[in-house]
Amino acid sequence: VSGTSQPDDSIEGEESLVQDFLAALSAGYPGALGLQDDCALLTPEPGTQLVLKTDPVAAGVHFFADDAPEDIAWKALAVNVSDLAAKGAQPIAYLMALALPHVPTRDWMRRFASGLGEAQAAFGCHLIGGDTDRTAGPLTISITAIGSVPEGRMVRRATARASDRLYVTGSIGDAALGLRLRRDAGAAAAMGIDAAGAAYLVQRYLRPRPALSIRDALREHAGAAMDVSDGLVKDLGRLCAASGVGARIEAARVPLSAPARAAVRANPQLLADLLTGGDDYEVLMAVPPGKQAAFEAATGLLSIGQIVAGSGVTVLDAAGAAMTFARTGWDHFSS
Amino acid sequence: VSGTSQPDDSIEGEESLVQDFLAALSAGYPGALGLQDDCALLTPEPGTQLVLKTDPVAAGVHFFADDAPEDIAWKALAVNVSDLAAKGAQPIAYLMALALPHVPTRDWMRRFASGLGEAQAAFGCHLIGGDTDRTAGPLTISITAIGSVPEGRMVRRATARASDRLYVTGSIGDAALGLRLRRDAGAAAAMGIDAAGAAYLVQRYLRPRPALSIRDALREHAGAAMDVSDGLVKDLGRLCAASGVGARIEAARVPLSAPARAAVRANPQLLADLLTGGDDYEVLMAVPPGKQAAFEAATGLLSIGQIVAGSGVTVLDAAGAAMTFARTGWDHFSS
Repeated sequence: VSGTSQPDDSIEGEESLVQDFLAALSAGYPGALGLQDDCALLTPEPGTQLVLKTDPVAAGVHFFADDAPEDIAWKALAVNVSDLAAKGAQPIAYLMALALPHVPTRDWMRRFASGLGEAQAAFGCHLIGGDTDRTAGPLTISITAIGSVPEGRMVRRATARASDRLYVTGSIGDAALGLRLRRDAGAAAAMGIDAAGAAYLVQRYLRPRPALSIRDALREHAGAAMDVSDGLVKDLGRLCAASGVGARIEAARVPLSAPARAAVRANPQLLADLLTGGDDYEVLMAVPPGKQAAFEAATGLLSIGQIVAGSGVTVLDAAGAAMTFARTGWDHFSS
Repeated sequence: VSGTSQPDDSIEGEESLVQDFLAALSAGYPGALGLQDDCALLTPEPGTQLVLKTDPVAAGVHFFADDAPEDIAWKALAVNVSDLAAKGAQPIAYLMALALPHVPTRDWMRRFASGLGEAQAAFGCHLIGGDTDRTAGPLTISITAIGSVPEGRMVRRATARASDRLYVTGSIGDAALGLRLRRDAGAAAAMGIDAAGAAYLVQRYLRPRPALSIRDALREHAGAAMDVSDGLVKDLGRLCAASGVGARIEAARVPLSAPARAAVRANPQLLADLLTGGDDYEVLMAVPPGKQAAFEAATGLLSIGQIVAGSGVTVLDAAGAAMTFARTGWDHFSS
């Protein structure tokens, strides 16, 4: 949190913080009860199931404490909604627990709520419950996101089968580059990235956009899917392990943005970092052979590889040789 | 967290932590998918609505870092389930995000999971989703609890009416005394509390038991209700503010446990601390006049006062004079 409390700009108590800044985000959702009750009330649509995810973000780990409050708020919601998107779910609502290292300024809270408002409007959901606390640790935002799917239609992680084709939405590795540029804006030129490209990559890091538009094609055609958040190679390995299969992908077929391609042209070694970089918030899908044509026609996506019998992930470079990786992605818990 | 990682007792990575210690807590709930998917899947019963709450707990604020891991886990779930209980909801499931300041020992995690298992068995719910992260701050457990109510039957906070009678489950102030004794076990004798009483009070602080057994009578008869967690006087004030009414209660009618009564006999000043102490996790209810007899017959509870027109909370002492309080309860956010 960059702002600290000023005598003329302070917030008095938890109720003021919730009612003055957050309650407006619950408008339009009657079950939120204006954030004035102990609990939120959610009325499921008949014939639907609920899909739930909690994935907190903390300053110093998932974002920088001096990031714009709008961006911090956006990311906190987006990383949760991305998991819903990967399951074919429509976001409905979310609860948020905010742990603040000190009393924020009214300006900081206003901007934080504004970023959250932008994100929930983009994703189609409402804040329905909240809690605020002081913390001796870093600013932490713990969101639980709730979505819905038609009964029996959630796309699972553990259901990939050998010979399924693999696809990924959007582009991979942008956020890994964006993180480097967020740390050192001056590094762009040496990396072969122009100013517009650098700005794009930093935005990709700061404001992930969950791949909600894939929903219909995903539910219709995919046999398995998951969110790519800790690095493509690591997350593909998780999908394979859960499904009891292996995978082989071709690095040259993994979609890269124009600025990322420019950076890889300038430094081919970088490709491995993009494939393992994390923070992509794209959707990885396995599509059975009989559904590939319809899936590709519906989405315009091209396959990056396929599921194979066995276990483990092989990534082939442009020459057809297996790439090796110093690490395959992020594990926030490893010591 | 009292245990630190030893070479022979360490946990490798987030997946091991979730799968080795937490996944067993999802057994019996198919939609948890063994904690191996991105999201959990919840199938609402037809004719029900869902009631949701998130209320994280952190070391140094809500518990002591060196509390028994079983007790920490119990409390983390209980404080959330208590809110469901106050709404007349039946707990179904919960998601948990665990932020750990360092890699815990296997023994600590085993005991933590064991306490969580005890609590979820007592409350009738399952772990359906989880996340673990390292944190630069204190151990923090962020639970989102989900319950269900028959459609239209959630008991709200904002619906108390003048002349409703007020009731509270269990006893008030035990946890405030338990907290003092947790800090200074030697203080019991001077406070007029014997060893058995002290042990009881500390347990009341460490292991709150949500008042789930009030559910049927609550839904049948109460006009409004809320969880008492930040102090009876403060929380009653919130119920009144939400409902646009005031309240008058008689301190002598507020239920106290035998050890708390002994402490008040030894030091009458203590009564004010018990009425504002926090951590009670009992349910405060407003029951309309026509339903009082049936409510009292069903629950055995006696009224502690009533809702009145106007605003604010008046607490009368045994002589009928209005008590004054240095503070009415906890606001975790006030600076």
